[in-house]
Amino acid sequence: MTTAKPLRVGMVGYAFMGAAHSHAWRTAPRFFDLPLQPQLTAVAGRNADGVRAAADKLGWESVESDWRRLIERDDIDLIDICTPGNTHAEIAIAALEAGKHVLCEKPLANSVEEAERMTLAAETAAKNGVLSMCGFSYRRTPALALARRFVDQGRLGEIRHVRAQYLQDWLTDANAPMTWRLDKEQSGSGSLGDIGAHSIDAAQWVTGLNISGVSALLETFVQERPLAGDLVGLGGHGDLSSDAPRGKVTVDDAAIFSARFDGGTSAGAVGVFEATRYALGRKNAMRLEVNGTKGSLAFDFEDMNALSFYDAADSPDAGFRKIFVTEPEHPYVGNWWPTGHGLGYEHGFTHQVVDLVTAIGEARQPEPSFADALQVQRVLAAVESSAANSSQWQKV
Amino acid sequence: MTTAKPLRVGMVGYAFMGAAHSHAWRTAPRFFDLPLQPQLTAVAGRNADGVRAAADKLGWESVESDWRRLIERDDIDLIDICTPGNTHAEIAIAALEAGKHVLCEKPLANSVEEAERMTLAAETAAKNGVLSMCGFSYRRTPALALARRFVDQGRLGEIRHVRAQYLQDWLTDANAPMTWRLDKEQSGSGSLGDIGAHSIDAAQWVTGLNISGVSALLETFVQERPLAGDLVGLGGHGDLSSDAPRGKVTVDDAAIFSARFDGGTSAGAVGVFEATRYALGRKNAMRLEVNGTKGSLAFDFEDMNALSFYDAADSPDAGFRKIFVTEPEHPYVGNWWPTGHGLGYEHGFTHQVVDLVTAIGEARQPEPSFADALQVQRVLAAVESSAANSSQWQKV
Amino acid sequence: MTTAKPLRVGMVGYAFMGAAHSHAWRTAPRFFDLPLQPQLTAVAGRNADGVRAAADKLGWESVESDWRRLIERDDIDLIDICTPGNTHAEIAIAALEAGKHVLCEKPLANSVEEAERMTLAAETAAKNGVLSMCGFSYRRTPALALARRFVDQGRLGEIRHVRAQYLQDWLTDANAPMTWRLDKEQSGSGSLGDIGAHSIDAAQWVTGLNISGVSALLETFVQERPLAGDLVGLGGHGDLSSDAPRGKVTVDDAAIFSARFDGGTSAGAVGVFEATRYALGRKNAMRLEVNGTKGSLAFDFEDMNALSFYDAADSPDAGFRKIFVTEPEHPYVGNWWPTGHGLGYEHGFTHQVVDLVTAIGEARQPEPSFADALQVQRVLAAVESSAANSSQWQKV
Amino acid sequence: MTTAKPLRVGMVGYAFMGAAHSHAWRTAPRFFDLPLQPQLTAVAGRNADGVRAAADKLGWESVESDWRRLIERDDIDLIDICTPGNTHAEIAIAALEAGKHVLCEKPLANSVEEAERMTLAAETAAKNGVLSMCGFSYRRTPALALARRFVDQGRLGEIRHVRAQYLQDWLTDANAPMTWRLDKEQSGSGSLGDIGAHSIDAAQWVTGLNISGVSALLETFVQERPLAGDLVGLGGHGDLSSDAPRGKVTVDDAAIFSARFDGGTSAGAVGVFEATRYALGRKNAMRLEVNGTKGSLAFDFEDMNALSFYDAADSPDAGFRKIFVTEPEHPYVGNWWPTGHGLGYEHGFTHQVVDLVTAIGEARQPEPSFADALQVQRVLAAVESSAANSSQWQKV
Repeated sequence: MTTAKPLRVGMVGYAFMGAAHSHAWRTAPRFFDLPLQPQLTAVAGRNADGVRAAADKLGWESVESDWRRLIERDDIDLIDICTPGNTHAEIAIAALEAGKHVLCEKPLANSVEEAERMTLAAETAAKNGVLSMCGFSYRRTPALALARRFVDQGRLGEIRHVRAQYLQDWLTDANAPMTWRLDKEQSGSGSLGDIGAHSIDAAQWVTGLNISGVSALLETFVQERPLAGDLVGLGGHGDLSSDAPRGKVTVDDAAIFSARFDGGTSAGAVGVFEATRYALGRKNAMRLEVNGTKGSLAFDFEDMNALSFYDAADSPDAGFRKIFVTEPEHPYVGNWWPTGHGLGYEHGFTHQVVDLVTAIGEARQPEPSFADALQVQRVLAAVESSAANSSQWQKV
Repeated sequence: MTTAKPLRVGMVGYAFMGAAHSHAWRTAPRFFDLPLQPQLTAVAGRNADGVRAAADKLGWESVESDWRRLIERDDIDLIDICTPGNTHAEIAIAALEAGKHVLCEKPLANSVEEAERMTLAAETAAKNGVLSMCGFSYRRTPALALARRFVDQGRLGEIRHVRAQYLQDWLTDANAPMTWRLDKEQSGSGSLGDIGAHSIDAAQWVTGLNISGVSALLETFVQERPLAGDLVGLGGHGDLSSDAPRGKVTVDDAAIFSARFDGGTSAGAVGVFEATRYALGRKNAMRLEVNGTKGSLAFDFEDMNALSFYDAADSPDAGFRKIFVTEPEHPYVGNWWPTGHGLGYEHGFTHQVVDLVTAIGEARQPEPSFADALQVQRVLAAVESSAANSSQWQKV
Repeated sequence: MTTAKPLRVGMVGYAFMGAAHSHAWRTAPRFFDLPLQPQLTAVAGRNADGVRAAADKLGWESVESDWRRLIERDDIDLIDICTPGNTHAEIAIAALEAGKHVLCEKPLANSVEEAERMTLAAETAAKNGVLSMCGFSYRRTPALALARRFVDQGRLGEIRHVRAQYLQDWLTDANAPMTWRLDKEQSGSGSLGDIGAHSIDAAQWVTGLNISGVSALLETFVQERPLAGDLVGLGGHGDLSSDAPRGKVTVDDAAIFSARFDGGTSAGAVGVFEATRYALGRKNAMRLEVNGTKGSLAFDFEDMNALSFYDAADSPDAGFRKIFVTEPEHPYVGNWWPTGHGLGYEHGFTHQVVDLVTAIGEARQPEPSFADALQVQRVLAAVESSAANSSQWQKV
Repeated sequence: MTTAKPLRVGMVGYAFMGAAHSHAWRTAPRFFDLPLQPQLTAVAGRNADGVRAAADKLGWESVESDWRRLIERDDIDLIDICTPGNTHAEIAIAALEAGKHVLCEKPLANSVEEAERMTLAAETAAKNGVLSMCGFSYRRTPALALARRFVDQGRLGEIRHVRAQYLQDWLTDANAPMTWRLDKEQSGSGSLGDIGAHSIDAAQWVTGLNISGVSALLETFVQERPLAGDLVGLGGHGDLSSDAPRGKVTVDDAAIFSARFDGGTSAGAVGVFEATRYALGRKNAMRLEVNGTKGSLAFDFEDMNALSFYDAADSPDAGFRKIFVTEPEHPYVGNWWPTGHGLGYEHGFTHQVVDLVTAIGEARQPEPSFADALQVQRVLAAVESSAANSSQWQKV
């Protein structure tokens, strides 16, 4: 470990995602052999006290109150962007142009146009060996990585159905406070971009198919919510008095869409997607089911260490096989604990660091690239377009 | 039991549904106190040998080879229609006009126009005390009846989401044979009318809300299938040689649609529906999830004796409560076995007979009426219309 | 159906078990082709009004107020014994000696001595073609029959562990009323014989191994309970006032024992058994798990249509496969509904009739024989003996 | 964080447990506010290269090749013992006598005699403010901590049943290699002490009851296993050739026992325990079910973020409520991620560090104390004694 060349990281933002990324940077080299040794060199944030406290708590060596300073520093090799979506394009493009590798949280941007510029910057930078990746961390859940392996191995046959739900419930209470995630200016969209984007990426990645068209419906159940301080943070647990001043919710509360994959002919797979924060009782139910002609897969992040697999070859004694994805042969898990000792939410971020650092060490493009994330962005845009147009079919 | 006035039943059709209905007519009076005593007076079918064998096996006293004869008989009080959808209108209207009560399998008809005529006939007949009901038997599953009770009691609060899937897999194999269920002429539609209709009825009935508009996608994955004999029967298990003559599949294999309930304003509940026979590994997964502001419900017919209920009032120690619906206080089950002894598929039909005979005995309209079933038919038509029109929103 | 020779049945007792058996006699010939046609000829019970009402409700042609009269009748071919255990020996032996086939509810008797006399009578009668069977109906659950098939096929390899629980909760309330099931004189034992006997039979039958020794603990949590009328019926739901007169509970509330199978060497399989009516929330959790060197099985009657099967050959992608036991190739189910349409509690009794009538029609010994049931009785006795002797190991 | 006084840790052993403990020491202060700041000062191990590599990988500042040196060092405040059980007593007593706090892995020792000496040393040291704790880390699983809270709150009423299983399968293959865990000299016992001890501690801690007597059966299915190198490491995944030299397995493969709690009168709760490494398909199924007169609890470590709770007050609509233990109000989890984002196996060790450091900071006895662990040791000894004595009841 000590002999590896350092990879000096500068992180922008230090809220929920910043904490998860920090843990990943600290932990990855303790369990995996990496070609470069991550160093938590600096963290940037506008609030000087806040960033200083975060640096202490999360283990960063120094702080900056402006992300631009981070990019200017010579002792930073990689910029890790953990801020709201409206800032991604500016930071990422500046970092790439300054020759810094970039890890950017999802969704890549708040618009296709921004995502296109970012992708262009990424592709230009890549020619000089400067690499970039978008943080669709659910790909690094061992069970979903195993799902993709099964598809790659042909164990599902031809794919017919994709059924993807991302269900949360933290907005069910109409008096849960307004947060930046409900402000279109900052977040780009609501459940669609925040959690639906994960479903889109996971569905496309696991199946190896791209969504070619959609028909969509967006809904905002609660139009105004009580304002609580600075609109920063995940929120969701507070319940303010009903006479607090209220802010307008400018994003979707729920997104529903049907999809076709890869060209949209009648021979193709069809999908149903749903993202909401009003599915009372579902806390983080990021679910994916794929039905093929030879096999089926089902996953629910609320039971994240398991993958259900149905193999038609087992008929008539077939049944969904609940695979506890903790065997040394399974993706990632061999580096952790013995069989049967499950992982948690943050391990996806650690694996993301592993994959990113490994790719940088081997000077190859990490996945998902900005171009991959741009495709997701285009699906998000198509969903919004269809929803605004009486659900009419919208090509991606 | 012996002192109750008889209710003399004539059944048309004797395949899968005929067997289920026969069992129900025989069994209902053994476990429930009915105001009228069902008698299995006659069964009608075109094939003389077949109907005779069925009568013996299923317990019918006499046979007819023409359903018209059944209607002409004085010793028949009720006509039970268990034939494909294209025959429903003619039989039901004739029966009602002849003063016979009618139980008609779902979907009510193959078109809205037929369903409207049937509803008109039903309403006219009702003025003379001749009653009719459509056979959406899933309503009689104790767990779904309990779900409705919970909604009625206000335990869910305002409803936000409905999520309804009806997943089967018996057509996954592209060489599974052609059956009447895949022929639009006979069946009206495919997965949409056969199983999706159950989801629509259950969703509307449990929530007490009507679907007001839809955006839909229909798909036929396999366009031609090997012909196997007379196209009668459920099929699905055979696997014919690939050089058998093939028939054209003229119905949908899968139906997907989003919906709004009750008026379609943005304040209303939204729904996602999916019906397919290609969800490999799902055998009869008729699932319904409802999320409200106070509680949520989840049901899967593959575990039909359980209802999952989430009560937000239990927070922070809330969780989906898996209610084993076998308590004497639960709908229907007190008449069967002690707590904990589950029921099976056919009990829904027995309960349907109980409800129908009780309503007739009390001279009141049984539910679901033909008018209720017409509403489902209108949703089916709207789905087909939207699907044919680039998924554009279609009011019901 | 109509051409088969009749099998004229006389049933003794008409409570819970009587209702289940009546349904089975009525229903079996409607779904299965039987070599003999069951006829519900007569039912016997001491209470004249009660037995008359039961006959009407359950479909019996005539009544007797003394079981001895039933045995004397020439028009009865088979005696079906549905009374408490203390009456089994006398009725069964008399019936067998009178040349009547016998179906006797479990446990076979209230003592090994009675069971031995019954077995002797059965073996003597069998020489004259008079057959007998004990009603361990859980064997007829399709999922458990499939479990046995898997063991027979060698899919489990060498068996290491058996884990059997039968958990109910209807006595949790200390004021639930006294019933005949809590009176040792009538019932022989408590949870041990009532439900534990099912676990013992199922474990031995599925594994093909016999229990060779046990170490046991019996417990009675509530020593006295309010008296409610005639002490007949399952009880368990009433909650009498605390000043009602109380009767002494003379049986075990819970039975726990460890076991060795087949000879008791250290190389053999070991088992853990638990039967209780105080497992709050478990309504009819008759569970069986078997671990072998090649595969494992798990079953829970609360989800009775499923069998979980783990095949080590699937490693490293192995997982418990939840088989929905509704395929036509599975035991019994091909005669019922299409794939995916589950069965209920009473189907086990119907299948029991099918197997019994088929064996009688083919003039061969039905299973489980009285000798098989005697082995279970010996295990019950060993459990009681060990429990009375400081849990010391007791050979069977 | 930086202002807290340091707590300088010296760890002995660096295999599976050493890695888990290291992660916990590194991570705890990043997510929790601790009164002392843990420092990974030194790690000791006999193999100089091995310990050096481990120190680099796991983040320890220095190394020692003899644990005695660790104890002699002035810059060490706490000794963390992660070695096999036969070394615990010597190290722990020496450390305590040297004034070092001690965290000792479970089981506390390989015999009651050792455990008694350790407890005496702990109690003596405590008078001087030197504290000690035994590492029953499963107590720190949020779901189990919530279970204990429910019992404390009286939500279960009087406890009737405890049902504890710890099922693994890594020895099912008779050719899995010999390891130190199968050598009585090093490990003290087999499944009993390794995993059964966790069940005993969890059952006693959650219920607040002590086991007062047991009846037990121990079994060794495979008497000899191929030798693989140094007998160090968890093993279990290799499969050596059948002609490798073989070592004798001197511990139990499976342990089964029944128990009474708190005095052993017939009014007390009863328990069933099972620990095995031959339950094919069960990877780390540490399960606990508790049935009381008012409520029941069920937990399975294979789904470690969930606790099932049945509240009889919900009748007749009661059901096991699957609580996703990720709410901020739940034990420990508020310091991690938002609701719905589950934790993994290693979090228990992190919470253990939190509780230990907090207790040391507050100068109070951490739990479980050595005295608590001695009670578990006495249960282990009683189990072995009963098993050696024909399962006869053995008081603890």
